Amino acid sequence: MSEIRNKLRIGVIGGSQPDSASRDLAARVGRLIAEHGAVVVCGGLGGVMEAAAHAAREAGGLTIGILPGSSPQDANPHIDVPIATGIGYARNALVVMNADALIAIDGAFGTLSEIAYGGVYERPVVGLGTWDVRSVIPAGTPEEAVRLALEKAAGRR
Amino acid sequence: MSEIRNKLRIGVIGGSQPDSASRDLAARVGRLIAEHGAVVVCGGLGGVMEAAAHAAREAGGLTIGILPGSSPQDANPHIDVPIATGIGYARNALVVMNADALIAIDGAFGTLSEIAYGGVYERPVVGLGTWDVRSVIPAGTPEEAVRLALEKAAGRR
Amino acid sequence: MSEIRNKLRIGVIGGSQPDSASRDLAARVGRLIAEHGAVVVCGGLGGVMEAAAHAAREAGGLTIGILPGSSPQDANPHIDVPIATGIGYARNALVVMNADALIAIDGAFGTLSEIAYGGVYERPVVGLGTWDVRSVIPAGTPEEAVRLALEKAAGRR
Amino acid sequence: MSEIRNKLRIGVIGGSQPDSASRDLAARVGRLIAEHGAVVVCGGLGGVMEAAAHAAREAGGLTIGILPGSSPQDANPHIDVPIATGIGYARNALVVMNADALIAIDGAFGTLSEIAYGGVYERPVVGLGTWDVRSVIPAGTPEEAVRLALEKAAGRR
Repeated sequence: MSEIRNKLRIGVIGGSQPDSASRDLAARVGRLIAEHGAVVVCGGLGGVMEAAAHAAREAGGLTIGILPGSSPQDANPHIDVPIATGIGYARNALVVMNADALIAIDGAFGTLSEIAYGGVYERPVVGLGTWDVRSVIPAGTPEEAVRLALEKAAGRR
Repeated sequence: MSEIRNKLRIGVIGGSQPDSASRDLAARVGRLIAEHGAVVVCGGLGGVMEAAAHAAREAGGLTIGILPGSSPQDANPHIDVPIATGIGYARNALVVMNADALIAIDGAFGTLSEIAYGGVYERPVVGLGTWDVRSVIPAGTPEEAVRLALEKAAGRR
Repeated sequence: MSEIRNKLRIGVIGGSQPDSASRDLAARVGRLIAEHGAVVVCGGLGGVMEAAAHAAREAGGLTIGILPGSSPQDANPHIDVPIATGIGYARNALVVMNADALIAIDGAFGTLSEIAYGGVYERPVVGLGTWDVRSVIPAGTPEEAVRLALEKAAGRR
Repeated sequence: MSEIRNKLRIGVIGGSQPDSASRDLAARVGRLIAEHGAVVVCGGLGGVMEAAAHAAREAGGLTIGILPGSSPQDANPHIDVPIATGIGYARNALVVMNADALIAIDGAFGTLSEIAYGGVYERPVVGLGTWDVRSVIPAGTPEEAVRLALEKAAGRR
């Protein structure tokens, strides 16, 4: 099977207007995912999504962005494979189902919906300073978050 | 405008396999919504959705069920207006956007996704023994829950 | 089961900017559907959808509008039960799956997508001056269209 | 911007159970798209989708499959980037909005819905032995179809 398809996919979810600390966490997470040969899946827009995708791309990784609008051009410039959906916030379900595991950083109610869909679709979610929900596996650093997410993702394949 | 359309709509969200206490709460909530002349909106399937719809119908109310599958016949027998979506759990967003306010009873991750969408779409959510999320307005009894939900719903019209 | 739920549902599909002849056809179709005790299901917006819903309401019928946007308030004033979806034109699939049979009047590409979904979801489509597709059952008048649609709808229940 | 993202995307749409002649056309179309450096976007399942993706992969191309179900594993083995949607046939809208232009080969009502969405989302559709709809640009051979689709796609960027 395809080399690209064999790569693990890690969803990175979080707010579109993070503070600079959360943005830094997202960038470190994105870079580490790419360095481990995995794909970043995200919502394709700004904030945490853009910081993770930017850093992943700089580290040679592949990035997929699943967008709420109907134009692939809406994606931030660091998305290799923009996927338009036109279904608005219902696309949050799609971000989750297309990841083997997810890392949640900060985030508002959209992120909470994605954490919830992690429970619905049985995708493990690792948390870095995000919603306190019982399904979220807490991590203290980006390194720990990526390690945990990759372990959980590998266990699902 | 239409008499039906003018009625407030209260979403009732919660698990499909509630314990009997939660089922009783759902029934009392459904009945009270109908007695106050409002419409019950729910996911159309079993458990909390069915208990609320059943009681609302018995009290002369109208019930709308927004289903994950593609057949209106999937709805429980107490739904007056079944709406098939065929979009799976992404339909949770639709349950929320079609309510003026919601009452969450018990519930698992699907309910959490609906509470989260309440934040996304700015629909107030009142809670009865459900997820502890900062946006949820806690209520101690079905009477209080319905009173709060109707107040919040009326404030949005 | 619910009296409302037992009613047949006839979808009325067509353009949002019809000429006056098509608007008249839609109004006659809507009125006849209501006079036969069936529910009008449509896309909830203007043109053919509004003309059919307006006439159905005036004849004492019930109207359901399944909207592309995320606010029930987007519906035209003749919709009793507006259902917001927030999924854009993908909602065309929902208009079809929520009807027992459909009547297509005039219409552009959105209507063609609904005719096509009629084939996908096995909902019969009767046509009045609409796309020439092999699955469309041609009718010469609103009376004939409604009679054929009700027959086909009854056969599916 | 990303090398992958800069590539034109050609949607290949058609039946899941084509005859062998249509399957051959799909394979030739897929190979030519890849040889011209463009990406194949399709519905990710069998028949025309699989034949086009298989041939595109063999020619060194990239393939995206946008699936109706909620598991990326549902994709045929020649899809590099499977995208699960969980929204059933409503995903037909997504296949179209994620292509710069499309080629329709044979096909039943699902394909007709995609041709219709081509009109809705203003994506040009080239046809090879498919539905006779006024928006479809007819082509006599796979070579002509791919040439026309690439021209139209380039005109949109």
